[in-house]
Amino acid sequence: MIGRFQEPDVVPSGLSAQKMTDTRTQTPRAVPQPGSPEQQACNVCSDHMITVSWSEKAGWAAPELKPLTNISLSPAASVLHYATECFEGLKLYRGQDQKLRLFRPLLNCQRMLRSATRISLPAFEPVELLALIERLCAVDGSRWLPKDNTNGLLYVRPTLIGTEGGMGLKRPREALLYIIIVSYPNHNPIAQPTVDLTTQDKKFSLFASHDQAVRAWPGGSGYAKIGANYGPALHVQEEATRQGHDQVLWLFGPDSQVTEAGGANFFAVIRNFSGEIELITAPLDDKTILAGITRQSVLELADAYLTEGSEHELAPVTVAVRTLTRGEMVIAYEQGRLLETFVVGTAYYITPVTEIDFRGRKIAPLQSTYARTLRNWIGGLQFGVEEHEWASIIKE
Amino acid sequence: MIGRFQEPDVVPSGLSAQKMTDTRTQTPRAVPQPGSPEQQACNVCSDHMITVSWSEKAGWAAPELKPLTNISLSPAASVLHYATECFEGLKLYRGQDQKLRLFRPLLNCQRMLRSATRISLPAFEPVELLALIERLCAVDGSRWLPKDNTNGLLYVRPTLIGTEGGMGLKRPREALLYIIIVSYPNHNPIAQPTVDLTTQDKKFSLFASHDQAVRAWPGGSGYAKIGANYGPALHVQEEATRQGHDQVLWLFGPDSQVTEAGGANFFAVIRNFSGEIELITAPLDDKTILAGITRQSVLELADAYLTEGSEHELAPVTVAVRTLTRGEMVIAYEQGRLLETFVVGTAYYITPVTEIDFRGRKIAPLQSTYARTLRNWIGGLQFGVEEHEWASIIKE
Repeated sequence: MIGRFQEPDVVPSGLSAQKMTDTRTQTPRAVPQPGSPEQQACNVCSDHMITVSWSEKAGWAAPELKPLTNISLSPAASVLHYATECFEGLKLYRGQDQKLRLFRPLLNCQRMLRSATRISLPAFEPVELLALIERLCAVDGSRWLPKDNTNGLLYVRPTLIGTEGGMGLKRPREALLYIIIVSYPNHNPIAQPTVDLTTQDKKFSLFASHDQAVRAWPGGSGYAKIGANYGPALHVQEEATRQGHDQVLWLFGPDSQVTEAGGANFFAVIRNFSGEIELITAPLDDKTILAGITRQSVLELADAYLTEGSEHELAPVTVAVRTLTRGEMVIAYEQGRLLETFVVGTAYYITPVTEIDFRGRKIAPLQSTYARTLRNWIGGLQFGVEEHEWASIIKE
Repeated sequence: MIGRFQEPDVVPSGLSAQKMTDTRTQTPRAVPQPGSPEQQACNVCSDHMITVSWSEKAGWAAPELKPLTNISLSPAASVLHYATECFEGLKLYRGQDQKLRLFRPLLNCQRMLRSATRISLPAFEPVELLALIERLCAVDGSRWLPKDNTNGLLYVRPTLIGTEGGMGLKRPREALLYIIIVSYPNHNPIAQPTVDLTTQDKKFSLFASHDQAVRAWPGGSGYAKIGANYGPALHVQEEATRQGHDQVLWLFGPDSQVTEAGGANFFAVIRNFSGEIELITAPLDDKTILAGITRQSVLELADAYLTEGSEHELAPVTVAVRTLTRGEMVIAYEQGRLLETFVVGTAYYITPVTEIDFRGRKIAPLQSTYARTLRNWIGGLQFGVEEHEWASIIKE
């Protein structure tokens, strides 16, 4: 299967969700109202967190579920100087059947292990991390995402940081894994799943990066979800925002390869010279782009339901995981063959791109048919319109 | 002058050392004995620290000199997820005249401003940061680096981190600047300045990086002293250590350009085909290497004292800031023209390299004459053998 994650070989690490201690808060926090500024800002955490400390000598300690609290670090802690940190991002969905769901969360846990390995942080069993995530979601989900909020979301952030204090440039011998949950704006793309999908999409424009701003490089760490890929890119995102755009579109190399958007993977639908419709996204081979879980899901769905022979009203596509350049896109656009472009990711779902500013050449794709169909399919799984193994129910 | 730093244009930011509050500890910490394991590990901080908080709304608060304490951060703090962090490293030297000195510290403060700007953290006046550094050195220097320890060192670490809590990928609107001092092993390269410099150097070998491990690239952030340049490189340093080497030598590009060593800049002395002796180091143009202060000092000294017409017993060199490739080095070595190689930096002084393992080809330079002469010159300034504007005395 295209883009399927491989479970890395891991020696047993001793992380064990079963050992978790459980201490509940006596002073529950105020849950932001849907649509409130606090919710828009994504900076209010839920009542509890899970922390697990690790040391080279003692391995993983017993996980602690406890009231949310600040993290206390030595001012010489590795993470504060050498960016020894990685994270994941998942959404917790309140389904139309009032059930809580996570979407393919084991893939997040497996990717987090790959990120941890890349940034010289300790390994762990992905299934144990998953069990911790599910536990925290079960504990805080009911109050922070009540059953009547059937379009509601929470954002789950597992994080791993190097905590050893000392000035030496070395693999940290102490670390802290923690999970927090953040209040998140409602944004259910299929709030009314029977809605007419041909309605106009709102503006979502991309601002192409220039030569002096390169996000990732072959041999670097662009594929991993580590802090080091994000901080150095903030100034470019800020420039995009200043220019009135929503995200950066990262180009790479002298031929301006289209790699990924700021916080999401990028897809284009192009009718090629032989009349075939290609669904194109950048390959993972040189490890310069994030191996997105929504990206993988789109590829798997397209392969199963959108290619030749599938029963669907849409014209069949050829799934093409390959390099796409600015030049190919501009020519396809000029010739009316650039049908659509969209970004995909946990934060952005599947969002049609309405304009790309290549700095000197703006292009606007013609349609958003495939994007909206895929968004509806995946959104349907996330919000429980259809039961599917990709969406796992959290028991409350 | 080659490699001279330019002070970036900065709007007045309001950081003011004059506003500093001063609270001393009632429980002084144990100072590690010279040569003790704690000192070797560089993980014992001195009694005090300086912190300055910043917010977009209020600007820089009054700096606080206070007893060393842990840093308390929101688990959603920007620095823990997006590596919004930068730092500097300076040594505090106890001179042979018992005076405390810093070496060109304003250059560190100016570079820290450039790093902060690169990583979307707030600007500040470098002279104000310098005043804070000098103040902390004055307060903790006497007890942590006593006057009888005339080979002694402390390591000073100014750090700036994004503290705003929230999941959005954006420039942090809250930050914390802090300065700590760490106990550091004695390592005065000119402890006996009259010693015979022709004595053998101890082994110091470099392990060349491979294609799958690229430290920095054009359009990236390799020139800045930000965490994002260090964490992702730890696994390569670890591989070098495992193979019995001291540091990584970072190669770049299909022609294997020699860029910098793990924590230091790299120099080679090569006799070229016309018989001229070149002192070569990588250029800063594409911003892939750290603009080292020792590097700059070596270039300035060589330009002033080692080139044609200078009065010195060493054969004159041509200072060449240019690209050097693995191929050129290997050929020069095979033909007996690779005279020496050395690394320079605050942590490593000027250290002759005794072997480079290019993975498939090992080379060993012939001599370390220039390295040791330069080390003696710069060490003499740092330890007060000679008064010079590059070394500023800290009043105790």
